[in-house]
Amino acid sequence: MPTPQTQPRNDSAPRGGRAFMRVIRRLVRLGALEDVRRLLDRVHPADVVQILRMLAPTERKAFTDVLLSHGRAGEVLADLPQAQVEEILVQVSNERIASLVSRLAPDKAADLLRLLFEDRVVAILKLLDEKTAATLDRLMTYGPETAGGMMTTRFLALDRHTRVGEAIDRLRSEPEAEMVFYLYVVDDAMRLEGVVSLRQLVLARHDQELREIMNPKVIRVRLDTSRGEVADVISRYNLLAVPVVDAGNVLCGIVTVDDAIDAITDETTREMYRLAGLNTEDRIGTPPRESVRRRLPWMVINLGTAILASWVVSFFEASIAQVVALATFMPIVAGMGGNGATQALTVIIRGIALGEIDFSSARRAILKEITVGVAIGVATGGLMAGIAMLWKGNAMLGLVICMAMIINLFVAGLTGAAVPLVLKWLKLDPALGSGVIVTTFTDCCGFLSFLGLGTLLLSFLK
Amino acid sequence: MPTPQTQPRNDSAPRGGRAFMRVIRRLVRLGALEDVRRLLDRVHPADVVQILRMLAPTERKAFTDVLLSHGRAGEVLADLPQAQVEEILVQVSNERIASLVSRLAPDKAADLLRLLFEDRVVAILKLLDEKTAATLDRLMTYGPETAGGMMTTRFLALDRHTRVGEAIDRLRSEPEAEMVFYLYVVDDAMRLEGVVSLRQLVLARHDQELREIMNPKVIRVRLDTSRGEVADVISRYNLLAVPVVDAGNVLCGIVTVDDAIDAITDETTREMYRLAGLNTEDRIGTPPRESVRRRLPWMVINLGTAILASWVVSFFEASIAQVVALATFMPIVAGMGGNGATQALTVIIRGIALGEIDFSSARRAILKEITVGVAIGVATGGLMAGIAMLWKGNAMLGLVICMAMIINLFVAGLTGAAVPLVLKWLKLDPALGSGVIVTTFTDCCGFLSFLGLGTLLLSFLK
Repeated sequence: MPTPQTQPRNDSAPRGGRAFMRVIRRLVRLGALEDVRRLLDRVHPADVVQILRMLAPTERKAFTDVLLSHGRAGEVLADLPQAQVEEILVQVSNERIASLVSRLAPDKAADLLRLLFEDRVVAILKLLDEKTAATLDRLMTYGPETAGGMMTTRFLALDRHTRVGEAIDRLRSEPEAEMVFYLYVVDDAMRLEGVVSLRQLVLARHDQELREIMNPKVIRVRLDTSRGEVADVISRYNLLAVPVVDAGNVLCGIVTVDDAIDAITDETTREMYRLAGLNTEDRIGTPPRESVRRRLPWMVINLGTAILASWVVSFFEASIAQVVALATFMPIVAGMGGNGATQALTVIIRGIALGEIDFSSARRAILKEITVGVAIGVATGGLMAGIAMLWKGNAMLGLVICMAMIINLFVAGLTGAAVPLVLKWLKLDPALGSGVIVTTFTDCCGFLSFLGLGTLLLSFLK
Repeated sequence: MPTPQTQPRNDSAPRGGRAFMRVIRRLVRLGALEDVRRLLDRVHPADVVQILRMLAPTERKAFTDVLLSHGRAGEVLADLPQAQVEEILVQVSNERIASLVSRLAPDKAADLLRLLFEDRVVAILKLLDEKTAATLDRLMTYGPETAGGMMTTRFLALDRHTRVGEAIDRLRSEPEAEMVFYLYVVDDAMRLEGVVSLRQLVLARHDQELREIMNPKVIRVRLDTSRGEVADVISRYNLLAVPVVDAGNVLCGIVTVDDAIDAITDETTREMYRLAGLNTEDRIGTPPRESVRRRLPWMVINLGTAILASWVVSFFEASIAQVVALATFMPIVAGMGGNGATQALTVIIRGIALGEIDFSSARRAILKEITVGVAIGVATGGLMAGIAMLWKGNAMLGLVICMAMIINLFVAGLTGAAVPLVLKWLKLDPALGSGVIVTTFTDCCGFLSFLGLGTLLLSFLK
């Protein structure tokens, strides 16, 4: 969720803030809510978010009631996870929401309203002044995962013929504009023509026109640029803000660097969660019932793939009945394959996310992971062969397990590298599902190669 | 690695940049290195990094030679992964490095020099002018994972009695200062007293003193604050830069928001890599031999835990010999436990990384994960019981597998939540090693509960 406050809020040092947090949490636990209300003025909204996260559910309820009657509640809400805000907003009147929203930056306000049902939004917009309502209405039409959904409309755009002196006067009269370190220069149809940094403005002569001092080559994004790509542009080119334009190059808003940081953090959580088959809304504070509901489908899919693997095993029940040691060692082959595949998978998925790989380098990456897999298979397989020989006193058993491990780590390297690349090529999320697909391969191939070789060489194993 | 360029480099739009990248890559492949050299002036350093990543090793060599003779080589090097830079710097003369380093911001320059052996550093520092050499020498004394190691010394600090008009003149005379959107106000011993934003400066009267318009409550970090914590402060309070002070509150440098983004990206990679048992230097471009060397120790540890699990199985070989279906189903119990544990682990580790959990909320989190685990165990265990009954025609087998799955998902929830919290409590990295510990638990408990119950009820399974 974007946070618009880009100028530093130097009103509370973090160390002081943390001591304060402890005091507030103690007061909430003691029920001294009047004292909490008084202290709330002096806490940074980011610290209030932190306090909320750490309170027990009942304490959180009491604290939220105090918070909602406080002027800075909006800023806090805008920083909370979506599920928690939805829960809170249900209990709040439309009038109260309208008052909170009117004090927020437009991008944050639109994010809050997006969480409400259509009819409530309409009612709340009617309570706001016409201009704010129109801005919010427009912002809400953009998807939350696009530049349009991230941008704020509080930026400063001036005509290219504006003189430096006038620009400084305009700055004085717009106390609410965000990221005033840049002024955007537009033509008479609001088309983006250039950017002037506040520093350039300070150093220029007052009678110069903006077009004389502006930088005309502006890195910009489109309204429909994805959230991840906007974050990538800001981070790659070390920007403090990036202007958002429509198809006709008309300046619509700006996305600031703090929103890019939020987007990067969210993308990371998504990436890690998808690897584990988790839903992004499944956090530490999510109620157990909700977590079960969200995790169960994935676990049922996993059960399906596990049954597939055990179906492979079932073909070899006759061999296992004769040489039970096969049952003892079969989890090792599958497990090592799974671990090898997870390593290959993580390197490739992270490489895709960081833009370190494209299709021309994909073949190289797959070949490398196969090489690494086979080499690790030879090393650990050889080690395991020795252990199996010493343990069970059967050299052939050692040979079978070693060969099966090499085969399975070959499969691990191949699928661990290829599956996320294929998913990416199909324009799917490379992290989503690749773990389960790859593990199914290494489980089935592990059992098949080990028990298959064991069956072929059964007479030597008895 | 910190990148100092915080002002936007609006000299190339990303779309143009990408088309350019394709042209350059084609020219490198064709060997038209003179054309590459000419085009290099017009490409953003961030795009050069991208080009380098995507070239094949031989092409990369040719391209690097061209790049090193180019003025902006330093900026590119500072953005590359450490291993790659080390490889390149070996081939470059001290004189060339000195010339590259002298054109870089001090924090980037120090980062490059940190990659070289002590005697080369001494030789290179001698080639630089005295003031630069002293700054770099001092910066290199700070650990790269601290605020001191991240900060740049190109900031603007002015005495509190400076008048606004003089401050603007100083701004004019320091074209190299970074993050000139803030001026820091210090006393005569360089102790940090306040901050003035460029905007406040523009709006103030020229005869006012800085102390009149400054904000005295400045969020600051200490020289030894960890890199992750610096990034956390910048991201939590939406700062563009944070001043770094020593124990006596003397202003030593500033860390800018782009460095915070780099730190967040690095921390994320580290977190994901540690979960998979990977070394952070093990990337897509790492040579296979190097990757094998880095991954092998972890795979040997995994082999050890897998042998431990198979040792558990070996106790039940007599039961398996009588009821081979036990061998068929045992991977399901262990596998489902492993998946459940990975989900719990990911939620908790991510929660720790995002600061959503502390010790007061840890008990709640563990209880929640146990509840979720047992509930999912009941649901998937029940489903599996039905499937086992239909498949093998034995109701008792279904009951055994169901009970074993419930027990193992209880263990999965408990260890998945508790192990990272205990590691954190021991001041260890919660992601490092927790995966292998937890999987060892679920593997061993899975086999023990399923084969143990099967042995107890063996007479009903035949």
